[in-house]
Amino acid sequence: MYYAEPVAKLINELTKLPGIGPKTAQRLAFHLLRASKEEVTKLASALLEAKDKVTYCSICYNLTDTDPCRICSNPGRDQSTICVVGDPKSVVAMERTKEFSGVYHVLHGNLSPIEGIGPDQIKVKELLKRIQENEITELILATDPNVEGEATAMYIAKLVKPLGVKVSRIAHGVPVGGDLEYADEVTLAKALINRREIG
Amino acid sequence: MYYAEPVAKLINELTKLPGIGPKTAQRLAFHLLRASKEEVTKLASALLEAKDKVTYCSICYNLTDTDPCRICSNPGRDQSTICVVGDPKSVVAMERTKEFSGVYHVLHGNLSPIEGIGPDQIKVKELLKRIQENEITELILATDPNVEGEATAMYIAKLVKPLGVKVSRIAHGVPVGGDLEYADEVTLAKALINRREIG
Repeated sequence: MYYAEPVAKLINELTKLPGIGPKTAQRLAFHLLRASKEEVTKLASALLEAKDKVTYCSICYNLTDTDPCRICSNPGRDQSTICVVGDPKSVVAMERTKEFSGVYHVLHGNLSPIEGIGPDQIKVKELLKRIQENEITELILATDPNVEGEATAMYIAKLVKPLGVKVSRIAHGVPVGGDLEYADEVTLAKALINRREIG
Repeated sequence: MYYAEPVAKLINELTKLPGIGPKTAQRLAFHLLRASKEEVTKLASALLEAKDKVTYCSICYNLTDTDPCRICSNPGRDQSTICVVGDPKSVVAMERTKEFSGVYHVLHGNLSPIEGIGPDQIKVKELLKRIQENEITELILATDPNVEGEATAMYIAKLVKPLGVKVSRIAHGVPVGGDLEYADEVTLAKALINRREIG
């Protein structure tokens, strides 16, 4: 026991955070001990307030401090187009594009047999119910472009197709602004296959 | 504004921590929102408790929740040998060796003209006063083995020498357990110069 006990406790709590090892936790703890009391209090209350006020939207399951969330309750958004994403971070990424005016559905995970995540562990049932009970014209599958995300998209597409809803998947291709030589071969192959006629 | 406000506030507070960028802050925030309320409360109170209870030892300026600290008030430690270090982390590193039974003096920084840190910004005056008012036989300079740490050690050595106190500097050399080929040339040169006769 080389640390004063409250310091050891703080380091221990910080180490529980993802991606924070003992060295980083120690660095953060010493930073916080040097910081003003006001700064530390602000961080602590931001933690408690976020935990206290933030829940899931009962329609789209995005994180929100109002229910329904600001997107679901916005009359300017097209309620008949649902963009299906894996997690709240993807909603933020989509919103940044400013290209989507529909609403979202957050699955909170991808299907992953290896990790024991089946359809019941993610918000698939809720999505189906939502489609059946509302006038939905298009479902845009924007799950992550990795193996689990693709599998999840395929699974949902199969499930929803019989309901007569148009289902689409976001396009794969080379990232805008990058050098072609840095694109991995799978992405480049997809970009080639999905080529579009121009001019 | 793509996040619910308490989420944005939490991310903003987390971004203020050293080495935590917007992406890491976002990842931490979403982890905390998924975590149980109990876990978040434990982290928040560890923060507040550490800030509340931890102060500086009035003798050695290490972080402590008792004053004097547990090391300064330990009758088993040799009060006449002071190990001078740059920060509280160095005390922990030294204690781990279990080779030092004296006491510490934490400078809280190194001299650094570039960053505007002079002798008045670190605990040099306090060290001198401590040496003058107590029976000190040896001062071990264990500031960091970088340019600033060396300069600080040299400065203190010059200052303290006239007081008739034995002053030593921790040895430089190749780390134990490493491969020689990975040692940088400056360290290796120091190791060569400081070689000791054996056998």
